[in-house]
Amino acid sequence: MITHPSFTVEPWCLRETELNLDVLAQSESVFALSNGHIGWRGNLDEGEPHGLPGAYLNGVYERHPLPYAEAGYGYPESGQTMINVTNGKVIRLLVDDHPCDLRYGRLLAHERVLDFRSGVLSRTAQWTSPGGRTVRITSHRLVSFTQRAVAAIVYEVEPVDGPATVAVQSELVANEQLPHLEGDPRVAAATDSPLVPEEHFAQETRLRLVHCTERTALRVAAAADHLVEGPPSTSWTAQSEPDVSRLTVTADLVPGQPLRLVKFVAYGWSGERSLPAVHDQVDGAVAAAVSTGWDGLVAAQRDYLDRFWDGADVEVEGDAQIQQAVRFALFHVLQAAARGENRAIPAKGLTGTGYDGHSFWDTESYVLPLLTFTAPETVASELRWRHRTLPAARERARQLGLSGATFPWRTIDGAECSAYWPAGTAAFHINADIAAAVLRYVMVTGDEDFERGEGLDLLVDTARLWRSLGHHDAEGVFHIDGVTGPDEYSAVARDNVYTNLMARLNLLAAANVATRHPERAEELGVDDEEAAAWRDAAARMAVPHNASLDVHEQSAGFTTFQRWDFEATPPENYPLLLHYPYFDLYRRQVIKQADLVMAMMECPHLFSAEQKANNFAYYEPLTVRDSSLSACVQAVLAAETGHLRLAYAYLGEAALMDLDDLEHNTRDGLHIASLAGTWIALVGGFGGMRRYLGDGGVPDQLSFAPRLPEALSRVTFRVLVRGRRLTVDISPSHARYHLTEGEPLSLLHHGDPVTVTTDAPADCPMPAVSARPEPQQPPGRRPEGLPPDEEHRAAAEE
Amino acid sequence: MITHPSFTVEPWCLRETELNLDVLAQSESVFALSNGHIGWRGNLDEGEPHGLPGAYLNGVYERHPLPYAEAGYGYPESGQTMINVTNGKVIRLLVDDHPCDLRYGRLLAHERVLDFRSGVLSRTAQWTSPGGRTVRITSHRLVSFTQRAVAAIVYEVEPVDGPATVAVQSELVANEQLPHLEGDPRVAAATDSPLVPEEHFAQETRLRLVHCTERTALRVAAAADHLVEGPPSTSWTAQSEPDVSRLTVTADLVPGQPLRLVKFVAYGWSGERSLPAVHDQVDGAVAAAVSTGWDGLVAAQRDYLDRFWDGADVEVEGDAQIQQAVRFALFHVLQAAARGENRAIPAKGLTGTGYDGHSFWDTESYVLPLLTFTAPETVASELRWRHRTLPAARERARQLGLSGATFPWRTIDGAECSAYWPAGTAAFHINADIAAAVLRYVMVTGDEDFERGEGLDLLVDTARLWRSLGHHDAEGVFHIDGVTGPDEYSAVARDNVYTNLMARLNLLAAANVATRHPERAEELGVDDEEAAAWRDAAARMAVPHNASLDVHEQSAGFTTFQRWDFEATPPENYPLLLHYPYFDLYRRQVIKQADLVMAMMECPHLFSAEQKANNFAYYEPLTVRDSSLSACVQAVLAAETGHLRLAYAYLGEAALMDLDDLEHNTRDGLHIASLAGTWIALVGGFGGMRRYLGDGGVPDQLSFAPRLPEALSRVTFRVLVRGRRLTVDISPSHARYHLTEGEPLSLLHHGDPVTVTTDAPADCPMPAVSARPEPQQPPGRRPEGLPPDEEHRAAAEE
Repeated sequence: MITHPSFTVEPWCLRETELNLDVLAQSESVFALSNGHIGWRGNLDEGEPHGLPGAYLNGVYERHPLPYAEAGYGYPESGQTMINVTNGKVIRLLVDDHPCDLRYGRLLAHERVLDFRSGVLSRTAQWTSPGGRTVRITSHRLVSFTQRAVAAIVYEVEPVDGPATVAVQSELVANEQLPHLEGDPRVAAATDSPLVPEEHFAQETRLRLVHCTERTALRVAAAADHLVEGPPSTSWTAQSEPDVSRLTVTADLVPGQPLRLVKFVAYGWSGERSLPAVHDQVDGAVAAAVSTGWDGLVAAQRDYLDRFWDGADVEVEGDAQIQQAVRFALFHVLQAAARGENRAIPAKGLTGTGYDGHSFWDTESYVLPLLTFTAPETVASELRWRHRTLPAARERARQLGLSGATFPWRTIDGAECSAYWPAGTAAFHINADIAAAVLRYVMVTGDEDFERGEGLDLLVDTARLWRSLGHHDAEGVFHIDGVTGPDEYSAVARDNVYTNLMARLNLLAAANVATRHPERAEELGVDDEEAAAWRDAAARMAVPHNASLDVHEQSAGFTTFQRWDFEATPPENYPLLLHYPYFDLYRRQVIKQADLVMAMMECPHLFSAEQKANNFAYYEPLTVRDSSLSACVQAVLAAETGHLRLAYAYLGEAALMDLDDLEHNTRDGLHIASLAGTWIALVGGFGGMRRYLGDGGVPDQLSFAPRLPEALSRVTFRVLVRGRRLTVDISPSHARYHLTEGEPLSLLHHGDPVTVTTDAPADCPMPAVSARPEPQQPPGRRPEGLPPDEEHRAAAEE
Repeated sequence: MITHPSFTVEPWCLRETELNLDVLAQSESVFALSNGHIGWRGNLDEGEPHGLPGAYLNGVYERHPLPYAEAGYGYPESGQTMINVTNGKVIRLLVDDHPCDLRYGRLLAHERVLDFRSGVLSRTAQWTSPGGRTVRITSHRLVSFTQRAVAAIVYEVEPVDGPATVAVQSELVANEQLPHLEGDPRVAAATDSPLVPEEHFAQETRLRLVHCTERTALRVAAAADHLVEGPPSTSWTAQSEPDVSRLTVTADLVPGQPLRLVKFVAYGWSGERSLPAVHDQVDGAVAAAVSTGWDGLVAAQRDYLDRFWDGADVEVEGDAQIQQAVRFALFHVLQAAARGENRAIPAKGLTGTGYDGHSFWDTESYVLPLLTFTAPETVASELRWRHRTLPAARERARQLGLSGATFPWRTIDGAECSAYWPAGTAAFHINADIAAAVLRYVMVTGDEDFERGEGLDLLVDTARLWRSLGHHDAEGVFHIDGVTGPDEYSAVARDNVYTNLMARLNLLAAANVATRHPERAEELGVDDEEAAAWRDAAARMAVPHNASLDVHEQSAGFTTFQRWDFEATPPENYPLLLHYPYFDLYRRQVIKQADLVMAMMECPHLFSAEQKANNFAYYEPLTVRDSSLSACVQAVLAAETGHLRLAYAYLGEAALMDLDDLEHNTRDGLHIASLAGTWIALVGGFGGMRRYLGDGGVPDQLSFAPRLPEALSRVTFRVLVRGRRLTVDISPSHARYHLTEGEPLSLLHHGDPVTVTTDAPADCPMPAVSARPEPQQPPGRRPEGLPPDEEHRAAAEE
């Protein structure tokens, strides 16, 4: 595995020991701070140089028309883009009239550290200005987990080699000029100057800007207050214009005599509330932050994170990089979700504008699994957001001629924004993914109120969708035609196994949960006939299987398509979608990302061990992993089928997606789903954790099948289950299940029932792992960390 | 059948007896004049009112960017739009200072007649100006078939109730303001002010404008000269500006003393030649026209058309409307193609800007069949245009990762302009359609030079395409995956039967023609191995068939899709593509236009009579005819399967597509393919004419199977076959084959060999027609002229 040489490997932080302007935008993503409500990219305090300046508020976006050279019925007319809101991070510095811009002068030292336990981004720099004066700059920044509207910065500057007159300009800046992005069609277009000024204010140490978006009419307010500590010469003034509000502090400094500024920033936004209301809201939040003080915010941040780590930490022995990466991942996933409060979790969190700030199915299928077991309150919040968009989803279903609800493939506010229907509208599986997230949340938390309320609403409307989308054939088999599964190199196919099995789960669960809550079911108009129709469709669901190959078909006919000519595909032609037409990808056996393999992870009880091994061996050489969503799922099935070395390699790929910028687009924001995939690979792969689904289709038991790759000597992870805190501690020889809190828990260890209590941990021996020969990947697509193709092939032949 | 009450039914002309401003744009399309090089819509001489002003030159277009909200590899970046060039038709009239605008004053009489034998559009009007003066206006207009660059107008005005001072302004106008079109996504966006002025000139009676298009850099010149006849008071002046050049003639007239203007207009354009060269070209063409004179142009026009009708006329007894419609159709198809000279034949000819002026597969599959048997020189010209675009088609194939050539789904200059790949790029059948047009042309004309030259080039490159597009499965069956057939309500399917059978023909023919011309084949790099690979693929071509239903599948699995819920589809929801999403149409049994049924027309020898009857009965209730390309093909198979009443109804639909504006878009131009379909329905349907394909895949004999519907007492048609002129005269009791010119001809009459000579016509008896019960159409989609559904159903049950 590769890491950037300026990043060090440490267990509890991400440390960058020098500033590399070539990867500045990437570093801004990995050093981004967020609480799920506010997002601040890791831009340098001085504002410039920057890769992509970014301050985001979850849910603040602008609309834009979606152009079509040839339009069609049901194509969404409006796109949505998360916008860069007022930047409250900027603290510019002048040293004897030279602006501190690290591109000029001489940078003697520069270090940034993101501490996963304190939730603070710290920076120290030593810089000689073009005028020859050297200063030491220290800053600390946080976006508060406990005060949702608040972020804060401590900025300190001190000359080291003689006196200096410094000016520090602490700003709120709106409508920053953004770099123009182009190239990869997946990189979203940025929206220029999205904010219309409504109010600007600057007085004493207080700043405020209020703006409104033009088309979505969202009012966005930012306020700041400051504490200034410096020598007696220190003075300040404040001034404001429509797009900038600024506190300018000047001081004559000598070595040993720093100037220190504490900046408290608060954000608020609303599509409903008045200017005075939003204005007061941010002023109040700032005042509260000032009252708490910097130290108070830091202490609360640490408390919040201590509680999180206590229930969520994953310890990895034997690979320090993976240890660091999984904590980096957990920290960023938490940041994406912590205080979203009935808003979406975007694919990039609030770390960048990639994918336009949209949420996709990866939230429910990759991010929520981790959060369900570690921070379940965030899951309820995300699913409440989905529930809040039910009216839009019902309207979309109606527009498409379907029953129930059709959730959008990509969205910010709940309206479909996907402009390419074969990989958007046709990817109906997102509806079952949401239903599965409901089931997972309810099973793991036991939150019956949610199940009876939002949960049942979501299950019923998605079940209705499936029943209207599919149909029975002359033999009574239930088919779902014309849909696209997870693999985006196949589209608009019949009976995608992943989709069909997830729909089956959705139909069964809706029927069962409705039966458990008859009064609410009646409110929703679900009668016995409807529930029976759901159960019948589920029972007769088509699951295509190629008998002569003895493998399941990703979708009907897939195994008879022509194989992609991998041998003739040069390495620079990946990702394939940038170099080959969809028509060619769709009609061949080539897979962007785990699809049938993902079905085996999500519905493990519907495949025998033999089938899992066969299928994994068949699909592995066809899967190119042009999606960051693939490696972690492959890791899970590689582990389950005994290919532990391969699982470990895939774990590495998922874990280092952003730290190593494997897809060359971390600049646009972090791959939150792939980060969550690090946890999936460890817990689902080496922990073998599954939710066992009973015959009723409702998950009712937790099972584990731990096994470690040679490289790892121990993996310990923690999960929260219905008020219990369970620690699973895996070593090569045995696994220990340890309950630190809560009632006794029954679980399965490699199929054997085990009950653990707080008094008695269970020590279980590890069965021997057997596996067939390791499957090959498409040429040139081996994950890092395995022997290259040649050796591998030779080894396989021996 | 319905006709507009102001149109009369006459055998040799289209006459409109009053002006109806509500259908002005439609009338401009049906009264359009063209010679395949110049197209003038039937706009009123005075320019306004108009529906859509239009003057077009075949091949003159502008490019525009194609927008994609989500772009993809291989998507065309540039669109092309036929532009409205300099309008040479305008002759404005002022009567005592009142502009003659028929929306004002009082229109006492207005008649327009398009004479199919003279090729002249004549108009008489009697109009009382708002000032109270009544004038008689007479005009005649032609676009010359014999002088390709020339059009001419005679315009005469005379007061009828007292003296009048009149001014007549004869103009060349560029960059006319066009009405803004929107709504149906299929209606193309117009291009505003596409012409950049280069030169303007007006002197004595001569006018000239030269412009250039901005992005395509095509230089367009128009020139005019005039003859003026009037009383001694008559005088004139000429003046010009960049976008208008004008001759103004004034005269004081009294009843009995008309003012007469003859206007000769010439057009020229080039992407290569200089301003002086193009300028001289149009001046020369005008001078030649003046020298020929109006009467000379009229006489030559008549001669040209006499020769055409002698070899092409279709006589129909028993239905005067069909008689008129088929001549209207033949006339307009000739106009679209006559002097195109190595340019495309657009879907709307040069009658309007519908489909952006693009050519599609309908040219080869609908228009060329008619022309091959009646005006074969135009077919060679069109195919030479395709040949000229081979480099672009080869480049497109390379871009798509295929061998050979991939011709564009829609284009003006040979570059792909289709922005929706499932119904564009994926419709690969166009390549086989072009190959089939080559075979048809060569068989019917015996043009061996063409076969050896352009023909073989086209066959080889298209065969190479098919070989690379398809693949053999484990059992050795050759499949073509991921393509779209003619039916645009199905897309991206496996083994579309139409596509596969046409590809089979293409592969076989390429192999056979290459074998016949070994030297040229060697030049093209075709060796025995390649030819064998083509023959092998053809021999093992998949042709999906549902054994339990005993019908062929339009594409693999089609017969197992869910049937469209026709009963729940209200009449106003047709065409379906404007009211339902593609995803829903694609996954159901619902057919926009003949597809499998078309395969049975194009490859009649590959289906038994029993199969044809079964298939027709199966697909008929699924076919909604949302495309104007459907009815004529259904007519042919209805006739073949003995459903003569139904065939007759479909003939009517094809024939009256534009005269009755059945698709409500005749305003945008005529449906040239549906017009040609009138001939296909009569000749292929009631004449039962087919080209029999030998085992070698190359058509080698003409066969007929005449049969008449009750309503018709006689159908007579003429075809040119290898220098022979054959007349087929069908009455209810027998068919007479009569050779008026050329060597003896062998043919088949209902399967029996017959030889006809110029001396001895063959009289053949008609066999009895038997048929199963008439198949039903989807509810509400019965063609006009049949009993309504209810009666029909009741009748079928008896």
